[in-house]
Amino acid sequence: MNDRGRLIVISGPSGAGKSTVVFKAIENREDICFSTSVTTRKPRPGEVDGREYFFVDLDRFKEMVEKDELLEHAVYVANSYGTPRAYVERQMAAGLNVLLDIEVQGARQIHEKMPEAVMIFIVPPSMAELRRRLEARGTDTERAIEARLIRAGQEYAEADFYDYIIVNDDAEMAARELSAIITAERCRASNRMQYLKAQQ
Amino acid sequence: MNDRGRLIVISGPSGAGKSTVVFKAIENREDICFSTSVTTRKPRPGEVDGREYFFVDLDRFKEMVEKDELLEHAVYVANSYGTPRAYVERQMAAGLNVLLDIEVQGARQIHEKMPEAVMIFIVPPSMAELRRRLEARGTDTERAIEARLIRAGQEYAEADFYDYIIVNDDAEMAARELSAIITAERCRASNRMQYLKAQQ
Repeated sequence: MNDRGRLIVISGPSGAGKSTVVFKAIENREDICFSTSVTTRKPRPGEVDGREYFFVDLDRFKEMVEKDELLEHAVYVANSYGTPRAYVERQMAAGLNVLLDIEVQGARQIHEKMPEAVMIFIVPPSMAELRRRLEARGTDTERAIEARLIRAGQEYAEADFYDYIIVNDDAEMAARELSAIITAERCRASNRMQYLKAQQ
Repeated sequence: MNDRGRLIVISGPSGAGKSTVVFKAIENREDICFSTSVTTRKPRPGEVDGREYFFVDLDRFKEMVEKDELLEHAVYVANSYGTPRAYVERQMAAGLNVLLDIEVQGARQIHEKMPEAVMIFIVPPSMAELRRRLEARGTDTERAIEARLIRAGQEYAEADFYDYIIVNDDAEMAARELSAIITAERCRASNRMQYLKAQQ
């Protein structure tokens, strides 16, 4: 079978354990790749165009925005970042599920431009546990942790467009759920109707 | 976590290998039970009310139909069968996924009465392979096989309301897909929104 791949968008508050869950879920799976972003920042030593990022200048970035070549983009003070639609489409056509870890506002842009993208929200079991994890990580000041918790609450309130919610209480279980969602989404009737049509 | 269970409706032509796939998929899973039907036929020796079937008389069956207590029902010459809504709801509330193997017309009734039920269509890789499997089974005459193939084609044409399609080429792979769908459907945002709400 040659299913088309899917775009899998993953969001969730900092400290929810997204990276751990994602890396456990994609172990031993060859049908998944990560999305590669476009950026206007300069490549660092050792970075390769098309591997870490697609490196473009500001004029080309603006052109991509104008021509709707980006599924989402964000402009920061120094640099801009975006997700190139053509690259994602190409990977999906080749049968790969494309994984993208992005915050809620970017995810919403993608949801609007590509409604068939699979939207997954990963959360900790409670705000108290989120605080505990952020404190245990030891990389943030108390003030930064407070800010992250407030930000998490805001994200929850905006997260009404996600298709799936994974509660990362046990990372193994959460990874099994993420892997199951990716497998299940390939089986969607909208993705496989051709198998019925071909047999009629 | 105490997710609500889901109603999982499975259909597919005779010879698609549904039973094999289902039994492989539910091995080692404790979150799945089979639906128990209501019937007007008399219990056979050894059958227990509420285990093989809920045994009711024709008046009670008619009353269940009138009071919309059945998610689907079919009336045959001798006996009638149906799926009791209250039983299914009770299992789901207890966190169990309820599995129901039923033909397309019954599945459509359920889809209409309970739109959140998960509809899965299991098909063989081709009509030629379906014929080969029916012949290998050796239980049907050539004429019965022809009838089954025609019936399969009709079912495909009516199967536009299914959420998922599993192509049973390799039963192990098909079982993994079925199990993944059941796991993924528990993670649906509509089934887990309370975890976000509780944290806000």
